[in-house]
Amino acid sequence: MAVYNPKWLTLTIAFAVATLSASTVYFWRRKSKDGEEARIQGLEASLKNALEKCAAERQGRIKAQQALRKALVQQNSESYELSSYPMAPIAVIQSCFSTRNGTPRQPLLVPLARARLKFDAARVPSASLEGLERYSHCWILYVFHLNTDLEKLWKHPSQSKFKAKVRVPRLKGERIGVFATRSPHRPCPIGLTVAKVDSVEGQTVLLSGVDLVDGTPVLDVKPYLPYCDSVSEAAVPEWVKADNLLAVASINFSRGFSDGLADCWPVVEKRSLYTSQHEFEGLIKQVLSWDIRSVSQRSRPHNSITRTGIDSINDTAAKLEDHEDDEISGQGGGGESISSDDVIYHLILEGLDVSYRIDCDSNVIVEKASLCLSQNETTNRISVHDSV
Amino acid sequence: MAVYNPKWLTLTIAFAVATLSASTVYFWRRKSKDGEEARIQGLEASLKNALEKCAAERQGRIKAQQALRKALVQQNSESYELSSYPMAPIAVIQSCFSTRNGTPRQPLLVPLARARLKFDAARVPSASLEGLERYSHCWILYVFHLNTDLEKLWKHPSQSKFKAKVRVPRLKGERIGVFATRSPHRPCPIGLTVAKVDSVEGQTVLLSGVDLVDGTPVLDVKPYLPYCDSVSEAAVPEWVKADNLLAVASINFSRGFSDGLADCWPVVEKRSLYTSQHEFEGLIKQVLSWDIRSVSQRSRPHNSITRTGIDSINDTAAKLEDHEDDEISGQGGGGESISSDDVIYHLILEGLDVSYRIDCDSNVIVEKASLCLSQNETTNRISVHDSV
Repeated sequence: MAVYNPKWLTLTIAFAVATLSASTVYFWRRKSKDGEEARIQGLEASLKNALEKCAAERQGRIKAQQALRKALVQQNSESYELSSYPMAPIAVIQSCFSTRNGTPRQPLLVPLARARLKFDAARVPSASLEGLERYSHCWILYVFHLNTDLEKLWKHPSQSKFKAKVRVPRLKGERIGVFATRSPHRPCPIGLTVAKVDSVEGQTVLLSGVDLVDGTPVLDVKPYLPYCDSVSEAAVPEWVKADNLLAVASINFSRGFSDGLADCWPVVEKRSLYTSQHEFEGLIKQVLSWDIRSVSQRSRPHNSITRTGIDSINDTAAKLEDHEDDEISGQGGGGESISSDDVIYHLILEGLDVSYRIDCDSNVIVEKASLCLSQNETTNRISVHDSV
Repeated sequence: MAVYNPKWLTLTIAFAVATLSASTVYFWRRKSKDGEEARIQGLEASLKNALEKCAAERQGRIKAQQALRKALVQQNSESYELSSYPMAPIAVIQSCFSTRNGTPRQPLLVPLARARLKFDAARVPSASLEGLERYSHCWILYVFHLNTDLEKLWKHPSQSKFKAKVRVPRLKGERIGVFATRSPHRPCPIGLTVAKVDSVEGQTVLLSGVDLVDGTPVLDVKPYLPYCDSVSEAAVPEWVKADNLLAVASINFSRGFSDGLADCWPVVEKRSLYTSQHEFEGLIKQVLSWDIRSVSQRSRPHNSITRTGIDSINDTAAKLEDHEDDEISGQGGGGESISSDDVIYHLILEGLDVSYRIDCDSNVIVEKASLCLSQNETTNRISVHDSV
């Protein structure tokens, strides 16, 4: 028996096994750790990305907000200075014509057509109007605020497109250049009209013979100087000369009209431009003494939609307006058919709905006057009737 | 010797050591893993936070950019719509009157006074002018661009202050409301004048009888409709009726005038509104047939500053202009004294400096025409002469 020593053998074997076990566990755990390290690296990379992106978004937000502030505060004044002049209205028209429907096609046509020019008191001191009452007439420069495409004024004003030619009914639908008309749809939607100066009281100017619709913003008022402004010999094309104004044959009020008006009158009286119901009736008579219907309505009055109610009025007017081009201002009366022979037309004056009939011989019967159902209704009428 | 078995002992010890080692390694690694797991959890939490923050910043950025777009496109239309309308000129006047000095006080006064209306080709197609040639006259709505306080238009346009009353020379310095005058200094600096339509060629309209200065921005052109625009019976105050136009007694050209003009003519001919030197002389004659001097100059022509040169002209004109209020447009001729009896006045037409004398009997001698020293000189004359 010899060299073999069981104790050393035991130790050796124990050591080997221990090492083997430890190694196995080690490497098993390590492999696991590698996976986690990869995961950690992945997470760290994602986090880094997310933080960078966050910083970029934040930069973008800050820039946008700064630019927004600048735009709101300075109103991009440099580009404006070169391309457009901001014109702020100095007054608003308070007119007897609540909607374009019925508003005369030319100034001074309806002498009883009145308006108040209400100046912005904060901006226009009454002293600036002193002396205006010494003139019999004045020019009103106003904004065609009912143009449905008005908002494009603010989108690159110097690049806004507009229709080069407009249709002229009197030329049987032929088109001519917009600058050869007084159409509202022009690059700078500024209207020009003359009115009679009745009186000047503080910050209010009373006008008559107006052809402006209620709510019209006014940019300027100038005295009318005949030696500058009146060119009676000015020549115009034949089709302009052709009389677009048709006088009706007769006007009469229905039997119950005055009583009906008397019921409404107390409501409108306070703000009215007219001192009495009688004077108001005078206005109605003057307005309706000209056939204010559109060309289409005149030729086919009984082809209106048979539905009754405001909607049909709006639809009809809108359809007709689509084919109507106004040289001076909008026209066209809303029509409502109640039978195959009679068409009732409506006209809104000082917020009162005045209905009338007109027969094929151009005899007008003014039916009744009633309060408009609601303020909204008046607004709706404005927006639909007046869109071109 | 007995029960003790060395093989089993060996195995047991080996197993125990192995287990111990493995466990040690295991728990050591596990502790390490816990640390990494915590780290991973931390990273995941951070990543989640970062992504949420990123999303929030992105939302903020998008909102700010949308608001910015809205502000730039609509130009804060809510406040603008209520406070001002941006009007972008459609054309520029190229007029024979290089400065306000000499520009007529009223339209159609000088039939040979010509201008080209040059439309912005990018914005105004020539089709939009078709038919305008069929009218003999048209309205020009323009900007009083020479107003020195024009920049206030862009600073809170709806709140800009303006002088309520202006001085009127014909009323011996008395002041009346600005809206009772045609003064350029109004809240919305829009001018209104009529001109004769000579021809329409593509994007250019040739006008005559103009009272507009070169470079005037034009907002609108409208056909003149006598049945709308002519109110010959319009009444004005007495002081307006009083004749502000003084015809001179006679006009003659100096001996060397035509030769002197012939020297300059080739330079201006190309852009000239006049077909010949002779026609241009006709313009000069018409312009000077009205005494275009200011009221002060008329009464005290020999009290001009004795210094010669452009500066004295500017000083004199500015001093005089200070006391001058124009109902229609600027006036006042620059005067330069060369002796105690003679005053030489200057007038810039089509960039040519036309000098003339006028004696106390209102006889005019047109001395000579020469090229302006420089373009700058013409500009300087405009900015000083025309400031009020």
